[in-house]
This record gives sequence, C-alpha cells and structure tokens, in this order.
Amino acid sequence: MKKIITLGEVMLRLSPPGHQRFVQSQVLEVEFGGSEANVGAALAFWGHHAIHITSFPDHEIGWAAKSALRSNGIDTSFVQFSEGRMGIYFLENGAMQRSSQVIYDRADSSFSRFDGKNLDWDTILEGSDWIHWSGITPALSQESADLTLKALQKANEKGLKVSGDLNYRSNLWKYGKAPYEIMPKLMELTHVMIAGIRDFNQCLNQRMEDFEAVKDFAFSRFKQLEFISKTERISHSSSHNTISGALYSKDKSYYSKSYELTHIVDRVGTGDAFGAGLIDGLLERHDPQEAIEFAVAAGAIKHSVPGDILNCSKTEIEELIAGLSGKIKR
Amino acid sequence: MKKIITLGEVMLRLSPPGHQRFVQSQVLEVEFGGSEANVGAALAFWGHHAIHITSFPDHEIGWAAKSALRSNGIDTSFVQFSEGRMGIYFLENGAMQRSSQVIYDRADSSFSRFDGKNLDWDTILEGSDWIHWSGITPALSQESADLTLKALQKANEKGLKVSGDLNYRSNLWKYGKAPYEIMPKLMELTHVMIAGIRDFNQCLNQRMEDFEAVKDFAFSRFKQLEFISKTERISHSSSHNTISGALYSKDKSYYSKSYELTHIVDRVGTGDAFGAGLIDGLLERHDPQEAIEFAVAAGAIKHSVPGDILNCSKTEIEELIAGLSGKIKR
Amino acid sequence: MKKIITLGEVMLRLSPPGHQRFVQSQVLEVEFGGSEANVGAALAFWGHHAIHITSFPDHEIGWAAKSALRSNGIDTSFVQFSEGRMGIYFLENGAMQRSSQVIYDRADSSFSRFDGKNLDWDTILEGSDWIHWSGITPALSQESADLTLKALQKANEKGLKVSGDLNYRSNLWKYGKAPYEIMPKLMELTHVMIAGIRDFNQCLNQRMEDFEAVKDFAFSRFKQLEFISKTERISHSSSHNTISGALYSKDKSYYSKSYELTHIVDRVGTGDAFGAGLIDGLLERHDPQEAIEFAVAAGAIKHSVPGDILNCSKTEIEELIAGLSGKIKR
Amino acid sequence: MKKIITLGEVMLRLSPPGHQRFVQSQVLEVEFGGSEANVGAALAFWGHHAIHITSFPDHEIGWAAKSALRSNGIDTSFVQFSEGRMGIYFLENGAMQRSSQVIYDRADSSFSRFDGKNLDWDTILEGSDWIHWSGITPALSQESADLTLKALQKANEKGLKVSGDLNYRSNLWKYGKAPYEIMPKLMELTHVMIAGIRDFNQCLNQRMEDFEAVKDFAFSRFKQLEFISKTERISHSSSHNTISGALYSKDKSYYSKSYELTHIVDRVGTGDAFGAGLIDGLLERHDPQEAIEFAVAAGAIKHSVPGDILNCSKTEIEELIAGLSGKIKR
Amino acid sequence: MKKIITLGEVMLRLSPPGHQRFVQSQVLEVEFGGSEANVGAALAFWGHHAIHITSFPDHEIGWAAKSALRSNGIDTSFVQFSEGRMGIYFLENGAMQRSSQVIYDRADSSFSRFDGKNLDWDTILEGSDWIHWSGITPALSQESADLTLKALQKANEKGLKVSGDLNYRSNLWKYGKAPYEIMPKLMELTHVMIAGIRDFNQCLNQRMEDFEAVKDFAFSRFKQLEFISKTERISHSSSHNTISGALYSKDKSYYSKSYELTHIVDRVGTGDAFGAGLIDGLLERHDPQEAIEFAVAAGAIKHSVPGDILNCSKTEIEELIAGLSGKIKR
Amino acid sequence: MKKIITLGEVMLRLSPPGHQRFVQSQVLEVEFGGSEANVGAALAFWGHHAIHITSFPDHEIGWAAKSALRSNGIDTSFVQFSEGRMGIYFLENGAMQRSSQVIYDRADSSFSRFDGKNLDWDTILEGSDWIHWSGITPALSQESADLTLKALQKANEKGLKVSGDLNYRSNLWKYGKAPYEIMPKLMELTHVMIAGIRDFNQCLNQRMEDFEAVKDFAFSRFKQLEFISKTERISHSSSHNTISGALYSKDKSYYSKSYELTHIVDRVGTGDAFGAGLIDGLLERHDPQEAIEFAVAAGAIKHSVPGDILNCSKTEIEELIAGLSGKIKR
Repeated sequence: MKKIITLGEVMLRLSPPGHQRFVQSQVLEVEFGGSEANVGAALAFWGHHAIHITSFPDHEIGWAAKSALRSNGIDTSFVQFSEGRMGIYFLENGAMQRSSQVIYDRADSSFSRFDGKNLDWDTILEGSDWIHWSGITPALSQESADLTLKALQKANEKGLKVSGDLNYRSNLWKYGKAPYEIMPKLMELTHVMIAGIRDFNQCLNQRMEDFEAVKDFAFSRFKQLEFISKTERISHSSSHNTISGALYSKDKSYYSKSYELTHIVDRVGTGDAFGAGLIDGLLERHDPQEAIEFAVAAGAIKHSVPGDILNCSKTEIEELIAGLSGKIKR
Repeated sequence: MKKIITLGEVMLRLSPPGHQRFVQSQVLEVEFGGSEANVGAALAFWGHHAIHITSFPDHEIGWAAKSALRSNGIDTSFVQFSEGRMGIYFLENGAMQRSSQVIYDRADSSFSRFDGKNLDWDTILEGSDWIHWSGITPALSQESADLTLKALQKANEKGLKVSGDLNYRSNLWKYGKAPYEIMPKLMELTHVMIAGIRDFNQCLNQRMEDFEAVKDFAFSRFKQLEFISKTERISHSSSHNTISGALYSKDKSYYSKSYELTHIVDRVGTGDAFGAGLIDGLLERHDPQEAIEFAVAAGAIKHSVPGDILNCSKTEIEELIAGLSGKIKR
Repeated sequence: MKKIITLGEVMLRLSPPGHQRFVQSQVLEVEFGGSEANVGAALAFWGHHAIHITSFPDHEIGWAAKSALRSNGIDTSFVQFSEGRMGIYFLENGAMQRSSQVIYDRADSSFSRFDGKNLDWDTILEGSDWIHWSGITPALSQESADLTLKALQKANEKGLKVSGDLNYRSNLWKYGKAPYEIMPKLMELTHVMIAGIRDFNQCLNQRMEDFEAVKDFAFSRFKQLEFISKTERISHSSSHNTISGALYSKDKSYYSKSYELTHIVDRVGTGDAFGAGLIDGLLERHDPQEAIEFAVAAGAIKHSVPGDILNCSKTEIEELIAGLSGKIKR
Repeated sequence: MKKIITLGEVMLRLSPPGHQRFVQSQVLEVEFGGSEANVGAALAFWGHHAIHITSFPDHEIGWAAKSALRSNGIDTSFVQFSEGRMGIYFLENGAMQRSSQVIYDRADSSFSRFDGKNLDWDTILEGSDWIHWSGITPALSQESADLTLKALQKANEKGLKVSGDLNYRSNLWKYGKAPYEIMPKLMELTHVMIAGIRDFNQCLNQRMEDFEAVKDFAFSRFKQLEFISKTERISHSSSHNTISGALYSKDKSYYSKSYELTHIVDRVGTGDAFGAGLIDGLLERHDPQEAIEFAVAAGAIKHSVPGDILNCSKTEIEELIAGLSGKIKR
Repeated sequence: MKKIITLGEVMLRLSPPGHQRFVQSQVLEVEFGGSEANVGAALAFWGHHAIHITSFPDHEIGWAAKSALRSNGIDTSFVQFSEGRMGIYFLENGAMQRSSQVIYDRADSSFSRFDGKNLDWDTILEGSDWIHWSGITPALSQESADLTLKALQKANEKGLKVSGDLNYRSNLWKYGKAPYEIMPKLMELTHVMIAGIRDFNQCLNQRMEDFEAVKDFAFSRFKQLEFISKTERISHSSSHNTISGALYSKDKSYYSKSYELTHIVDRVGTGDAFGAGLIDGLLERHDPQEAIEFAVAAGAIKHSVPGDILNCSKTEIEELIAGLSGKIKR
Repeated sequence: MKKIITLGEVMLRLSPPGHQRFVQSQVLEVEFGGSEANVGAALAFWGHHAIHITSFPDHEIGWAAKSALRSNGIDTSFVQFSEGRMGIYFLENGAMQRSSQVIYDRADSSFSRFDGKNLDWDTILEGSDWIHWSGITPALSQESADLTLKALQKANEKGLKVSGDLNYRSNLWKYGKAPYEIMPKLMELTHVMIAGIRDFNQCLNQRMEDFEAVKDFAFSRFKQLEFISKTERISHSSSHNTISGALYSKDKSYYSKSYELTHIVDRVGTGDAFGAGLIDGLLERHDPQEAIEFAVAAGAIKHSVPGDILNCSKTEIEELIAGLSGKIKR
C-alpha cells in the first residue's frame, strides 16, 4: 500500500439512463467524477491510501459529492468547502454509430475559484509516495494553475514522484492564458507524463508530427522526466473500440497487447483507469512491460463498468491480461 | 379561448425521487419549470392559446426544455436560443416536519443574459388578450428588467391586460439594483397584482404592516390597477397546509373558501396555479367571487400533482369547489 | 380450507407510478385484476382452494394474465384462451382532493365474447362449497349473461352457496338489455347479495329510497336469499375515507365498527377484499357479527396495499379488528 | 425549412423494459408512434414545419398522445378528437437470436373510424411543400382509405409533392377490400414511392419476381411517379442487421453505402427514419445520390435510439456518412 | 403433454440492474431460481405438467418463492414449508471481458435441512413420466442426498425415466462426504446423464482425460444408462460465447449445430434450458438428433432472456434451429 | 467535534419499494444499517469523528457495506473482514393500519462470529470521548458479548463516557445465555442508559411495573450511572405516531415536548436517531432539558427520511424544536 495524492475538480455527472437521448429522459442518473479523483478511486479500490484535494460548494450537492468520494474509498480529510457552484457535466451515452455527447456546465465552480491558501501541503504530503495531476486543472483558471504549481513544487521538495496526464482540452483555457504559458513549468516538475502528440504540441507550442520526435524532444527538454505513456484507441463505433498502450523510458519502448472491446458499457473514465493502472504498475511492479500491460488492461476493463470509476480488483485485471475472462465465477 | 403571453425564465428542475435527500439519490427526476411558464401551461391545458417568451442555450438540454414547454401545450414560436447556461434548480421534496429545499444554480443563464432585441413585439402581441409577468424576471439582471419593461410598455400600447406576480425573492436582486428602483415602473403598467404585504413593502420601499393600508396605498398610487390578489397559507408541515385567497378591487373584497390540504404531493408551482386560475377567472367569469374561488381551488389541487405544472381540468377544479372529491371516476 | 369458484373478466390494469397523471408518465405499472378474481385471490391467500373461470386472448399478454392469476395462488386449470382482445383499464391514482380516474378499454374482450360452451361445469363444481359472481359480468354481453346464468343454475343444482356482488355500473349494459331484464333471474339463484340501494333499484327497476324497505323487498322477493351486505364509505378525499359495513339476515342486522382510513395507498379492489372477507367470514365463523367485522377489516386493510389484490394474512386482519396496528413486527 | 404534411394513425406503444418478455414485466414503457407521424417528427427535429393529421379519443390517453406529438416538435393544430378507442401496440424488444414481437390492439380506434369530414384541407395544405402517406392507413378501414384519397387529391390540386410508403401488412386489410382495389388510385397521385417487390405485387395484384421489372412496370403505369426507393436489410439477429438502400428515377439508379449495425438498441421506426431522410434529401439536396445516402444513414442511426422517433441531428447523420462516429463529443 | 417431476433447491436471486457492480447498486433485482426448478419451468412453459418438490421457510419470502414458481406454471401442490432460512445467491452480471460473479449464501437453508419424511412419493409420482435431479442436491447435506436417493428409488419402482445433471460444484460438498461416496448410487438409478469429463471424474473418483473413454466407462458401469449429453461452450467474453452440444447413446453419437452468441443478456440458467430441451426432445421427438438440436437451441435462446427461466415457445426455438431469427414478428 | 466510538453489527437491509409487499416486489431497495452504526452516522453527519467497529465477510457485499458506512461519513479504519455471512434483514414498510414487518436473516454472520482478538483497543480509543453500545450485540453470541465487555472495560480504563441502548429483543439470545447473565456486567460500565421498563426487567431479571421504581433501582445498583433516558411512542398506525421522551438523572427528571407524526416515511432507525441526538445533546449542551429536546426532535425528524440513517442537519432539528417547519427553503 502506497500513499498517493490526487488534485482536481470533481463534477456532478448527469446522464440519461441506458441509451436515451437528453430530450427523452425523465430522470438523470447521478455520478460524481473527475479525471484525477477517478485515478484516486481506482488506486483506493486496490488498497492504496488515496487522498484527493479539491473543493466543493457548501450545500447538500457539495456534501453529496464528498460522500461519493468517501464511498469510493478516497480519503477526504483535506476536501474543502468554498464559494462557487458545483461543476456539472451532462453525459449522453452513445450507442452503435451514434457518439456519446458531453455538455460541460462547469464555469465558475468552487474548485475553479479555489486558491488553496488554507491547504497545509506539509501535512498533506507527509509520508506520501506519489502525486497525480492533469492538464485539466491548469486550464480552468489562474487560481487552479497556481494551485497545481504550488502542489507540484511542494511534492518535488518532499521527494514524491509526480505523474501528469496532459489531457489538452480545447474547450477549456478560457481565462486568458495559452497552455504553453502554463504547462511547461508544470511538466518540468513531473516524472511520468501521459500524453499523445497533440497534447505535447499544444502544451509546448510545437507542431511535431512524429511521436518518436515528440518523445525525444520531451526527454531532452524535461530533465526529470522518467516515463512517457500513451494509449492508442480506434473507435469503430460507440460500442466497439480497439485499445492498446505504450510506455517509453528515455531509451526503451514497451508496447502492450491490444484489446478488442465490443459491447462497451461506459467509455468515460477509461483513460483515468489507465492512469491509475500505470501508477500502480510503476509503483508495484519492477518491469515497465508489466506496468503498461496492467495499465492498458485496467483501462480496457473499465469499459465494462457504468460510471466514471474503475471498481475492478487487481485479480480481475490480471485475469484479463492472462486471457481468462467471461466465465461465471461462483 | 383567449390568447395570453407569459414572459420569464424556465429552469431545469432536478429532484430526488420520493422523499430521498440529495445525498441519498442515484437519480434525479427531470422537470422544466418557471413561475411564468407554469402559469402559461395551466392556461394552455384549459384551452387558451398560451405563448411563452424565453431563451435557452442552443444545446440538447435547451432543446429538451423547449420540447417540455411544447408538450405542455405552450406555443413556443417565439422561444429563442442564445448565449449562456441552462438555469437549474435542485429541489428536495420535504415530508412531514422536514422542509423542502431549493438550491438555485441559475446565475449566468441564457435568459438572464437575453436582451430580447430580436423579438418583434408587434407580432407577438398581435391579437393577444393578456400578458403575465413576475417579479422574478426583473430581479435577475438589468437585461431582464429592461426586457420586462419593454414588454409591458408594448402590451399597454396594444391594450392588453397585464398581470404581475410581484414575488419578491431576497436571494435574487444581485445585479446592483434594489427592487424599488425597478419595480414601480413595472407596477404602473400592471392591472392585476398578485402580492402580499412583504412584496409591496420590498417593491415600494415601505414598511407598512396592515394589508388594508397596503391595498389602499397601491390603489391610490397605481391608477391603472384594477385588482390585487393574495393567498393565505398556513404551513403545518411539508405534508399539511391550509390555504385560502382574497381578491380586492378598489372598493370591494372577495374571500375564497379555505382548503385543508393533507398528504401533499408537490408544493412547487401552487402559487403559479393560483395565478393561472386568477387569470382564467377574471377573463372567463363575470363575478370576482367566482374568479377567486377558481384561483384558490386551482392552487389547492396543484398540491396533488407532481411537477411544476398544473394539469387538472376545469371540471376537476369546479368539482373541488363544489365539494365533490375523492371518489373514483369510472 | 374450502373450495370456492369465481367467475368473471380479468383485465390488464395500467397505471402511472405514484401520483403522476397519465399525461406525465413514461411508464405504466402493470397489474391484472377483475372484481371476481380479486375475491378469489384473497381467498386463495388465506388458504382456500380458489378456482377462477375466465378466458383470455391466446397471446403473450393473455399468458401473462394467466401467470398473474397463478402467482396469486388461484387455480387456473379451467382458464380458457379464445377469440377477442385483452380487456384493459387505465387507472390514474388520485391523491388529496384529486379523484382517481379509470378509463375502460374493455369492449370486444375475449371474456365478453366467451360463451363457455366448452366448460364442463360438473367437473368444475365437483366438491365445491361456494361460487361468487358479480353484476359486472352480465353487464358485458349476452354471452356473459348467459354464462353467468348457466353457472348459477349448475351451482344451485350441486348445492353450492352462491354470493353475488350486484355492482351496478352505468357505463356497461351496452348490449341492448337493461339490468332488470337480466339480473332478477340471477338474484333468484343467489344466497348472499352484496348491494346498496342503487344496485337494488337498478337491478329490480325500482325507486326505493330507504334501505330498510329495500332489504325487506329483497328478502320477500328472493326466497333463497340468506344475507344482504353492504359497505358505507365516506370519501373525504382520495387519501382519506371512512368505512364501515352492515350484514342483514331476514330478521337481524349486524353492524361493524368504523375505520378511519388516512394515507390511502390504493383504493381499487377494496370492495372485492370486503367480498372475500364476507365469504370467508360466513364460511368459517359461526357468528354473523364476526363475519361482517372480518369483511370490513379486510376491505379496510386493502387500502394499504398497491394493486387490485388483498394479500394480507388473517392474522393481520384480526389484529386490525383487535385494534393492534402500526408497530414494527420483528 | 419546408412545410410538410403527414397523415396517419398514432398508437400507444407499450413495451417491457430492456430485454424482458411480456410475461416478466411489472411495468411497460410508454411511447406514442405511428409510421407517418414518425416521419413528421424526424422532419420537425431537422427544422421543418411538420403538420400531422390524425384523430384521438377525447380522454387523458388521447391528450397524452397529442402532447407527445407536440413534444416531438410536430404541429398539432389540426389534430382531432373523435369517437373510438386509442390504438395500442405491445412491443417486446428482441435480443440476440430472439425476435422482437408486436401484438397489435388497434381495431376500432378513433383514427380508423375518423372520416375527416371536419378537416379543411385548403387551410391545412396552404403553403405546404410535401405530403406523406403510408399503405397502413388505407388498410385500416374504408373511412381511412377515403380520407387518404381525399388528402392526396387535394394535395395534387395544390401542387404538393406526394410521397407514399406502400408498407403492405398482411394482418390489416380486414374491412372487406383487397389492396389492389384501393392502392392504385392512391399510387397514381404519388410522386415518390417507398416500396419493395412484395409491396408492389400486393398493391397491384401482380406476381413479379425481379425488381427491375417491377420498377419499370411502376414507372410505366404511374405517369406522375418520379422516384422509387427501397431499403435492403439482412437480419443476422435482433442485435445485428446490415442495411443499405437504393433510389431509382425512371432512368437512373442510385445505391447507398451499406452499414453494419451491431448492438442494435431499437429497430422500430427505422424505416420511418429512412422515409424522413429521403424526403429531406429530395427536398434539400440536389443530387439523388446524396438523398439516398442521407436517407439510409438516417435509418441506420435510428437503430441506436430507443423509441419510435429519430431524434438525431443532421450533423450526426452527416458524420455517419463521412465515417466519423463513436468518439465522445465534448 | 407429459408429467415431469423435478426436485431441488430454489433460491432467492438478487442482482444489480444492468451492468452495475454490487458496490454501486441501490436496488437488487429479485428472481427465484434453482437448476431443477428452472428445468421444470421451461417444461411447464411448453405445456407439460411440471411438479416441483422443494421446501421453503414459512414466511413472506418463502411464500414469494412459491408464488414465483406458480407464476412460471409449475405445480406447487407438494411444496413444503419447514425450518431453516431462504437460500440466497447474489449474482453480478458480467459484461465484455468482465466475468459474472455469484456469491452463494445458501448454508442452512430450509431445503438443505428438509428430510422429506412427510412427502408421499406414491401420490407425487402417480401417472408421472419423468423425474429430473441434479448433482447440486446431494452436495448440500446428508438429508438432501438421502432425499434424492429416496426419490430416485421410488421413481425407478414406478417406471419413470430419470435424468440427472451431474453438475459438480467444488464449493459445495461441505457436509463430510465426497461425491464418489454418494453419486454412484444415484447414477445407477438414472437413464439420462448430463455431464462432462470433470463431472464424471469427480463423481466416480477417476482421472480420465478423454471423453470417449469416459463415455464408455459410464455406459459399461451403469447398466440402466441410455443417454449421456453435454454442451460445449467457448467463453470469448461475458458478452460473447459459442455453444454446441452432443448426445451419446451406447453406440451412436449425435452432434448439434453450433451457435455464435453475441450480445448476451443473461447467461444464468442456460444449462437448465438445455436440460429442459433435452427432456422435451427425448420425450417428444423420435430422433435423438432432433432432441440434441432442440436442447442446444433452447440453451442458446435462453441467453437472450433475463432471469433464470427460459420462457421461449417451441416455435421460437424451432425457428432458431431453422435459421430464422431477428425479424420483427407482427 | 468529539470523537465517538460505536460497536455493533451492520446488516444488509432489503425492502420492497414504496408500499409493496414482499410477494409483489421485483426489486428490493438496498441499505446498510445497524443500530449502533446508525447512531455513528448521525453523529458523523453533525461533524463528529465517528468510528465504527464491526466485521464483514470479505466479498463484494461486505465491501459494499463498508463503502456505505464511509459514504455516511463514518471512519472505517478499524472495520475488519472475517469469516461468516453478511447479516441480512428484510424490511417491508407498513402503511396505514398495516404494520411494517422485519424478517431477520442474521444467524452466523461475520460479526456474530467475530472475536475482536486482532483489535488494538488502545489505538482505537486513543483521544476518544465516548463509546456507544447496544443490547443487540451481547444478544448475538458469546463472542459478541465478550467483545462488548472488552470494549467497555477498555473504555472505562481510558475515561470515556459510555452509553448503552439496552434494546432487549426476544428473538435474539439464542446462544444459551439469558440477558441477566450478561447484561449487568455491561451496565455497570455504562454512564448513560437508554431503556424502558421491559428492558430493565429483562436485563436484570426483575418484574417491576413502575418506571419510578425501575429508575431508582437502576441508579442505586449501578454506581457509575449518570442518566437514564427513554422515549414514549403511541402507534396510531404505521403512518401516524406520537412521540416524546424523558431524561432522568439521579435526582431530576426532564420531559421533552411531544410530536404528532403523520405521513410517516420510514420508521426504522428513529430510536437510533434519538440515541445520537442524546449523545450529541449531552456532549454539546449544558442543559439536560436541551439534550432531551434535541434527542426527541432528532428521532422525530428521522421519520421523514427513507433508510436507516438520520441525515438531517442540526439546523433542521433546531428549527423543528423551535416550531418552524414545512416551508420551502430557498
């Protein structure tokens, strides 16, 4: 069991049941999720001590959000309540050739307005092994960018490993800064980056086209960087994807097996499940090959579970890697 | 059948099923409602041509809101799509001695940012008999206050009757204006006011304590004013209320019978049902006494129906007035 | 345990959940019920051998209806499948001062077209103690009236007791006959009648106004008649009724205690529960006073159970008579 | 935006949730649909002014049906209420190798008894561009056949384009007429026919076996005919179909691409979605090839949506044609 | 129609809706099932007189279990109520590469403590054609093993055919006996065995590796044995299996066609559906080839139906064998 | 904020939705609750650090139970997983004059077999203010009785206050000991007892009939005892109760106001809510009168909330005491 910190916004997710469209639905299913907390929840499910840092509005919906984190095993001792709304995202689950749709309603959320001044990072980081952030947070607001920087600086001081999922989203970055003005500072403080070509290009204001070049550029620019990882996904339809992943150290590349995913239940949070698998893999497994296999299988099996959160055991994931799946377990 | 215009915000209402609290709920029930549109929906159900003027964000949730208005029989020909979010309110239905709770999340909504510049009031009001507004709209933003004023001016020019539900809400009026800076101009253009002492005091910056005095003050100040109406409600608990109502012309007072309401199903929208009943009563019945009886009975029977909207027939309401109720109709 | 035959139509009941109105509902709850089968189901729940005679269309909905009878413990050995539709009734559950509404869609049903030619009444009635019919059946069609007559004649030959719930319904009797042309023949073959003044007047083409007179008239006209019974119900609202009952032999009257019924869950089938209680009471209890008390309590407790069927044990009913109720039983 | 009239019955659709069979289900999901109204609903969703002509019983179920049409954006100004029942169809959704089942309960419906005498066709058709009918309507009753004929005659007088989905159904045509006695007159008034070999053979009392021959026969017989269109469907199972389509003018054939449809959500209404796509395609696109591509893609994507109605945007359909699908849209 | 006895435990099955995991679920779906009763239910659905012998606790859950058997058409005349709990199994439906999970909570159930002393086997077996048992029953307790033996001895005396599904389960056999101490006596009394290599090895304390050898061994050891049957299943994932089956008489082997099963709805009870199909096939069809085809198709189509029970008609199964499937049946 | 320990079994609660009976229900609603944990959950909701000590089976249902405790804010750091089943109780919610029913299925649970040998009480109790136990635990098994004794001895050593809810249940105490053999030792270690006459009589093997006498007896026998408290409940029906409470110190009596509770939502856990209110009242309020008022109001408002747990804020409870209730809070 390791102690792992995650930092980021948690939103209220509202989705029509089954394959209904928004316009058809008389009820919306409630989940609470966010990229970084999703990572923490999977790690907590596997027995790690996962602490999530975030802030909610101080009313019943905010309390319900905290309760949801707790039910997922996350340590919420440092969760704050502060001014602002509850971030919301509306998710319509696609099916067949119809795409899933996300409508974000997250502007002016408590988290995006949260400056973290009252957080005691020394206490939070005490005895911790790892901190995980994503590129979504610095894209929300100057406060969020500053908060991320502060956390990473403190974590580096304390000797934690830092992972970051660059996760560039074009519909964010509305507060007057471009990614390349903010991200490089954060990347310098990071040991493990999850990112594809587009993420690197956006964050570093580049236009590279070949991942080999991107990878070399990154390793040369960021001295502290130990690993880059990414997933490959082919979306045949909302119900059928193919996924695999790769992990790169400065001088070696590790490729996972590929999974054919049909009958997809819930596509959301699969990247976060991959991230959690990668962190656990790098922390608990000696071999990077095993780490990337575990990460990809974690991401793959998440597609079978409704909601943002991966709640599959390591045994289930390892059985998937071993090719055992689909029999009734009695 | 008369042609009646209503103007105001329509919000997404999200509530836990049955008597669950927010923190317990895995689904939220979806309704769309707003004080003025609720009035229009009841009038449409009774066969009037009800036109609602509002604006929604141009995405699937906004489309669903428009679809909901249509399903309630409202003419949405003039509904706009414009910048801003979907206003939301979270409603937890109380029970017994536990109060219902509303969490508003309506800031920065499409409607509150809607200036109505593209509305052709001449076309909208053509052939119309009545326009209904409420004090919620001018409390949202300067744009909304200006929009209301414009509508009432045009309606007065065209000779429509104007009803307004003053409906003072302390948690609105956040845009820098006090009610007494905005409301008097609107009240001058209004023929029928639904309001209690507190509403008048807030809107006119008075501290009157006796309704007789308030009433006389209002009739003397607003030359155009024909009727004032209000409801009396005793909240024994969330499940048990007593209601009655009164209607005042300059020189005469009309009091309705009182209803003992136990086993309350949904308290929301009962004031709007009263408003609709009053408009229908004044339009369709010669006797003010009949009008106030109809209005109060409409408000009373709304407590038995889930959702914001009154969807009870005139026959059902008239049977309630006649004291016939509760038998199975085959 | 006695062997009791019931005869009558069973319909598909479709109702919106909770207190929704038809226009609001995206799902309809499914029950199968009919006055006489409801009587049989309660008797079966109490351990009697209850046989129901009816007919359904031979498709999946008809099969589901038969399955529902079976799940309620009814012996369906003699249930037929024949030409015609499934009779349907749409039920909207009232609340507070809003009445429940029933929309019948039963014309041209299998049962109403069923002539019973293929029924072997000797086998059906072999070893039976009682047969129960209602005035709904002869009101459906000439075939149904003939079928009822045939059943009662056979039952009288075999020495069974016969109970009939006159249950006059003005929206039936559409096939060209008036009640008084059909009902007297059936009443002559009946030992226990459940009926109020209006039922007797309609069935006998009288205009009597006093129940004493009605009762005497009936006892004098129908030589075989042993008991008349009726319930008194005051409908304060859909959620609050007061009920009591009375049982009359030729020379003695028995009155039950009265029950104050608030928080009503489902009003439908309460008369049938009363009928079942009366049959059980007369079969199993020596004292008519006990019989009417049991019948009224059975009808009363039915109001607490959703659906058409009374599924409360004799113990529960006897505790209600004894004034014990409302504690948690562990 | 064009103005398009559709004419036909709208039924209450009742189906068990998910993959339950009728016999298992305690609730039935409610939709309202009918072939022609489904076409109108899709056209309304795309921004056209769609007017549906039909009739319902004047009770709460009929009102709910009208409300459902309205919520789908259809103009119900000319919807009538008249004698007769609500037509119903029970739908059990198949899965895997188990077929979907439909049980019709539509005899004696308001629409089938509706003679349309009170319809003012001049007003209805004023300014309209297109009218769509299907072979289901004339198969219901003589009144319905006459109503269709009247509508098509008026439409031809007014210069509207007429499309008809021949849609031969062997379980209809119970009122004493054969299709070939009724259909040819209607086909003569039609410009665009959706039909396969069997439809033509049944409607024209032929036994042709080759579609080329059928097509030539039709173009030679019906002078006004501009286009014939049909879909090809291979049903591997309830969950997996392959579809494509073709459009024929007198002298040219256009074939769409083919879609492999796995993980089917709801098969019902896919032909109607195709029909709507074809009408929009012929109205809005210059190239018949584009029209048939749009129609087939509209039909294909309908399989992903529960209910009778296609509520996918043109953008979604065009992305499907372009081969983009299945990614989460944020 | 034949008369068929089944003997075995019926459990309360509790499962999260859809693809939820236990930890996510606020409701559990209720079914009642057990291997042998599932066989009986399918046979009853096909019109046989199926009698199930079991015992339940005498409280409302036990009553509900009996009611569920009845609703499935099973004759429950001999069902007992006796000391002990209701056996429960929690089922989580897998999806994609995630396996289904069963958590048994059946220790100390009424059935496992039921000694059957009060059963009158002569009456039960009177006029019966067949009795079916499974290896689950003797694995529960000494009482259950003795009860099975008694039933089979009586059945052999009366000349019934006996089928047994050996169904070895390693998580049972906790009462101090090994399978090979109990099973051979029961197998000697059996004419049709459903079993694979592992079942035979466990029951006979062998380590054979080749099914041919197993089969010959069984036919030579059990003189009364007429048929051995087994299914072959390849579990590609929880959502995709391939199945086929084989039937062996002493000197001939019959192999069914193979079914590709994608989009699996519910895997549970598919073996029991196969068993029911085999019994019906051997009873009603002259040709063993037809029997095994029917059995495998019955097992295949069960995958499309939620719950433990096969409720598909013979027509549906025969259409599957004939390769017709997936079209909407109107 | 105080630190409070609770000790006891947590069961899976399964109940039919709404007012359904067990025999009607196709789903069961899931809660996890137990008397002592319910107390802890309310205290956690009010901001205390509540630690619950219990044990669950180590499978997904046990994990879900732990997750439920966490979601209620309880510190589960010391929750164990050990041999045995998950305790279950089936709850049918009564309505009107029909009683609620509980069917326990808790024999052989993990908790009842849990000896607590691996618990480090020094760590658990470190810095704690209060420990709460109930008479249910020592009634389960010798292990549970020993565990309770050990906890109370350690708590007394550490100087914690001890509260105990005697809660005598006749359907427990099955392991060979009578209450008076076990309870006195535990009562000696307790400072605050919640108990009525029957509890004292059973636990002390007395037959006292007057509460004054009981109270004096208890204060004289248990030197450490500071307070006795009890509730008075009149059950008019399942939907209508009247409750009040009393608190006694050695020489003074405090009586709460009385609450009329109609429209009851969920009666379960109301005694535990009272217990939590009492603990908070004694810890946080100087005046015993305030403590008993808070306790009774906490118990009263619990009736309005579904589930075992009180999740109402102190503000809500204090408003109830102040007589403010039932208005919509916006």
